[in-house]
Amino acid sequence: MNLKNKVLETIRQNNLIQPKEKVIVAFSGGPDSVCLLHLLHELKAELDIKLYAFHLNHQIRGLDAHRDAWYCLSLCDEYDIPFFVDSTDVPGYAQNMKMSLEEAARDVRYKKLFYLKSILNADKIAVAHNMDDQVETVLMRMMRGTGLYGLKGMEQLLSNGIIRPLLSVQKKEIIEELEQNGIHWQVDTTNQEDNYTRNKIRLSMILLMEECYPTAKENIFRMSASIREDSQYIEQNAMSFFEENHTLINSNTVKLELDDFFDMDLAIQKRSVRYSINVVLHSLKGIETVHLDSVIQLAKRYGDAQINLPKNLTVYKKQSALYFSTEELKEDILSFFYELEQNETIDISEISTEIETKVLLKDKNFMLSTGAYKKAFDFDKVSGRLFVRSREAGDRIKPMGLEGTKKIKNIFIDAKVPLAERNRIPIICDEAGNILWVVGHCISEEFKIDETTKKVILITVKQEND
Amino acid sequence: MNLKNKVLETIRQNNLIQPKEKVIVAFSGGPDSVCLLHLLHELKAELDIKLYAFHLNHQIRGLDAHRDAWYCLSLCDEYDIPFFVDSTDVPGYAQNMKMSLEEAARDVRYKKLFYLKSILNADKIAVAHNMDDQVETVLMRMMRGTGLYGLKGMEQLLSNGIIRPLLSVQKKEIIEELEQNGIHWQVDTTNQEDNYTRNKIRLSMILLMEECYPTAKENIFRMSASIREDSQYIEQNAMSFFEENHTLINSNTVKLELDDFFDMDLAIQKRSVRYSINVVLHSLKGIETVHLDSVIQLAKRYGDAQINLPKNLTVYKKQSALYFSTEELKEDILSFFYELEQNETIDISEISTEIETKVLLKDKNFMLSTGAYKKAFDFDKVSGRLFVRSREAGDRIKPMGLEGTKKIKNIFIDAKVPLAERNRIPIICDEAGNILWVVGHCISEEFKIDETTKKVILITVKQEND
Repeated sequence: MNLKNKVLETIRQNNLIQPKEKVIVAFSGGPDSVCLLHLLHELKAELDIKLYAFHLNHQIRGLDAHRDAWYCLSLCDEYDIPFFVDSTDVPGYAQNMKMSLEEAARDVRYKKLFYLKSILNADKIAVAHNMDDQVETVLMRMMRGTGLYGLKGMEQLLSNGIIRPLLSVQKKEIIEELEQNGIHWQVDTTNQEDNYTRNKIRLSMILLMEECYPTAKENIFRMSASIREDSQYIEQNAMSFFEENHTLINSNTVKLELDDFFDMDLAIQKRSVRYSINVVLHSLKGIETVHLDSVIQLAKRYGDAQINLPKNLTVYKKQSALYFSTEELKEDILSFFYELEQNETIDISEISTEIETKVLLKDKNFMLSTGAYKKAFDFDKVSGRLFVRSREAGDRIKPMGLEGTKKIKNIFIDAKVPLAERNRIPIICDEAGNILWVVGHCISEEFKIDETTKKVILITVKQEND
Repeated sequence: MNLKNKVLETIRQNNLIQPKEKVIVAFSGGPDSVCLLHLLHELKAELDIKLYAFHLNHQIRGLDAHRDAWYCLSLCDEYDIPFFVDSTDVPGYAQNMKMSLEEAARDVRYKKLFYLKSILNADKIAVAHNMDDQVETVLMRMMRGTGLYGLKGMEQLLSNGIIRPLLSVQKKEIIEELEQNGIHWQVDTTNQEDNYTRNKIRLSMILLMEECYPTAKENIFRMSASIREDSQYIEQNAMSFFEENHTLINSNTVKLELDDFFDMDLAIQKRSVRYSINVVLHSLKGIETVHLDSVIQLAKRYGDAQINLPKNLTVYKKQSALYFSTEELKEDILSFFYELEQNETIDISEISTEIETKVLLKDKNFMLSTGAYKKAFDFDKVSGRLFVRSREAGDRIKPMGLEGTKKIKNIFIDAKVPLAERNRIPIICDEAGNILWVVGHCISEEFKIDETTKKVILITVKQEND
């Protein structure tokens, strides 16, 4: 198959361009973008599209740059493609923005392209990345440190309208196509000087790889394609878990519920943490595996705790949630923990509730009236002190009359208690961590009164709006 | 932290060794295995384990090999560790088995190690792979072509008892440890000569990577660890889908049900295909992405079809299943497809069923008795000819009285029809592919008789054991 048909098939199979669309080609004058312009020009009628070209003079290479712009203009003239050119002082911009020349050029180029796209009301921006670029990108990301997300490489179609029709074409195919058609191109001299690392990968590392395995480039390219499928699968599952389990408390604070967190695989847990951080910081720069690990450790802690991450981010564990925030966490996030002393009444102001305890001796004629908010337990079965607290991730109870334990989370789910209400339900537990009572919902088999019971503790819960 | 404590922590965190276990060290005499033996010897009391060492003379390097064996013996003597030595003509074995020397040495070594493990009734075999080996392995697999499964690299703990306590230790840490403790090691001269590719990676490629990114090695190592989590998540989900949807028809044939196949992500679909192939061929050697793609294409086909894959494997699509087989598929796999002509009775021998059609004119006094196996349809609404056939993956019907369409699969699930029975249920459809009737279960809204109906087709299904 010739290159034109190969690219046509790529465009159709991946729905890169629809009929009647306006497509702007990012046109540097180097071999890749010349080939892209040439092929899209040849396919114009078949695809039924309108073509434009945009060239940016980066003001990095003096006269060479003017020569490039001139060449781009003349080719567009020949093809009768509307040509837009702009010139920006990229070195100055780089200095101002404290960016590398490479980063600055990229930044300016895309800004201008999207500006032109809005003016022309265009649909797509075609960029000329090829298979060699893809493999270099994957290798660079790998050496710099990445996971699945980085290994999948660049996409053929982005939601912002960027398309890469040459992504599965090798550099040597591009050169062949141009030579066969007698089309000239400009040598981008920055290419050889500017980006030290990428050129080292291109000129040494990949050649070395191909000495070991002649098809190494295609193999790595195919790997990144298969990883794209895997990544999509995991990201989708992780995102839907995240969507259901997070709340934006304010613009600087995200709450991640832990009720279902530990039922999920580590792959999902870590992604939920990453998404939470990204919502607060708008970026994941500087966040490393070790940080994700420490958040997972924090989530597993019993009781409240917090850790500091880079970029002024603090992660708080409070009851059964994590809070990611760049500000002091407001205390109105509900959490309470009190000791219940014998024969006393305590006030839990957080939930406007009073709890009264009475210790009674059980004799033959012992009779008690109990109800949903008044329960009696065998006091001799209690280990140490008694506490009343808000729920914690992982809380379990042995429900009266049932075999085994049940997650408190599931008791709430079965009773259709909304997430927002769950922290307001008092949990009565002893010093060993055993739960006696999920107030209003469930009492424990372990503390029930039987023939052997000698001492009884009667607990009464009164809500102020009762 | 010193290396001893680092390795102790690794062993504990990953549960590599339990107290009282017997551990055999694969002991070549090179720096890695000397360091492993030395550290495990130092940790022996703390871990409460019993240590053994095994050395294999590969008979590749003549006198040098004897020198290595002698050195190994003397070190074990010093440490008072029971030492086992064996000698095998690996070059001869390689020639017989048509393997490379490298492959043959590995094969023999592991066979002997597992033999010794069974004799000693040992629990673990400790091998000395380190972080450098891991990174080389990941790079080699990547260049040769791999996906998630290969990128995760070697595991620290395998279910067959192999452990790799040094996997997160760098080569340079190993050398430092030995030098600091004045422990000698043997230089494995095969290392420099034998494995051309691995040495090219070790001696040139990784150095080049570290010139670009000084921490490239650790970054790639960390990537493979994070990919292990991702891979585990996907493989678990894919395996549970595969377990529920495949049947071993005979030792050479696997059936993969397609009922739920297309509800799954491509990542799961492709893995199910890989697992199916692996069950039949006991290997995935020679199976490439392009083969998986063509199986997915086959699954999407309407009607029966088949394709040939390497290693004499044929994949058949029949109704709503794929069959992977190295033999001719037996015809007793249920599938039928017949035309239903007007006013005729046909016999579907496959399911011992007769189907009779009668076309009637509907006048004012039109009355019909129908039942579960006798239904009437508006004949003018039928497109072209009528057919009766077994189900196909993706079959849908617009059920009478309901909005929208329903998958036939779900109708069967709701009615608790076992998988084995589903192919025996006749589906009546027209030439346009619209389904009129899932016999015994559901009729279509689209073909129902109403005030405008002029011609009626009455279809009666008689099963022989009725």
